[in-house]
Amino acid sequence: MKYKSFDHMNCSLAQTLNIIGERWTLLILRDAFFGARRFGQFERSLGIAKNILTSRINMLVDEGILEKRDSTEGAHSEYVLTEKGWALQPVLLAMTHWGDKYKPDSRGKRLIFVERSTGKPIREMSAVSRDGRPLRPREIQAKAGPALDNELFLRVRE
Amino acid sequence: MKYKSFDHMNCSLAQTLNIIGERWTLLILRDAFFGARRFGQFERSLGIAKNILTSRINMLVDEGILEKRDSTEGAHSEYVLTEKGWALQPVLLAMTHWGDKYKPDSRGKRLIFVERSTGKPIREMSAVSRDGRPLRPREIQAKAGPALDNELFLRVRE
Repeated sequence: MKYKSFDHMNCSLAQTLNIIGERWTLLILRDAFFGARRFGQFERSLGIAKNILTSRINMLVDEGILEKRDSTEGAHSEYVLTEKGWALQPVLLAMTHWGDKYKPDSRGKRLIFVERSTGKPIREMSAVSRDGRPLRPREIQAKAGPALDNELFLRVRE
Repeated sequence: MKYKSFDHMNCSLAQTLNIIGERWTLLILRDAFFGARRFGQFERSLGIAKNILTSRINMLVDEGILEKRDSTEGAHSEYVLTEKGWALQPVLLAMTHWGDKYKPDSRGKRLIFVERSTGKPIREMSAVSRDGRPLRPREIQAKAGPALDNELFLRVRE
């Protein structure tokens, strides 16, 4: 399956979607966050076809989001999150919290994310002001930065 | 294009991806956040085929993320974010900040998100502790909630 690239779009969101904008990719990353490292672990967890999993994992390695390493035990390779991969955690948490709220399970939360050192649940993901106040969506405004061309929110107002 | 559904996965992230996990969908939402309301505005901004745009917008209306309204001016329809749609803002902001960092433009930021009332930039999206401290990815731990079956991070550890 060949996608139209968003490379030409001068937009950080489009650039990100160019990499992680395929649905399986975020589930592969989810499993990497949960400790999956071997090809077979991702395959069993996701029920995904080998060729699709191979292409997604290779792309994540090429992009520097996963690092391919020789296993410490046995002959297989392992795929480990890099710093660039760990930095995607807010994306996954924000999606998970939205799913918790709008696609809830009647029995309660599926997963609870806690601060490791205190065991206390983290706050619901939201924008935060410079001085640490949670901000509601309508309290945020987008302004053009130095790299913005004529695109995007300038164009939609035509 | 027919996707395999993630409906059966007992995972809030998978449930969310089931809805917004197609790349165009998040760009349509981006434009809605920037004020696009009319079909033609989305079409011009995205350079997307009419039939794909129609199916994505209809899905977002069916899911209650966009609301279809008669325009106040003229005969066309308008598509407006609902509260459920606004609640996706942290997902878009987290992706945008990651793209700012890892797919930067040499001229600087493309967009700067500020608090409307103060004009000051928001913090970089991250998890936040119960008492308001930004948390780094490795400071977060996932625990099983009441709705978790045998899946997910239990399964990848097999």
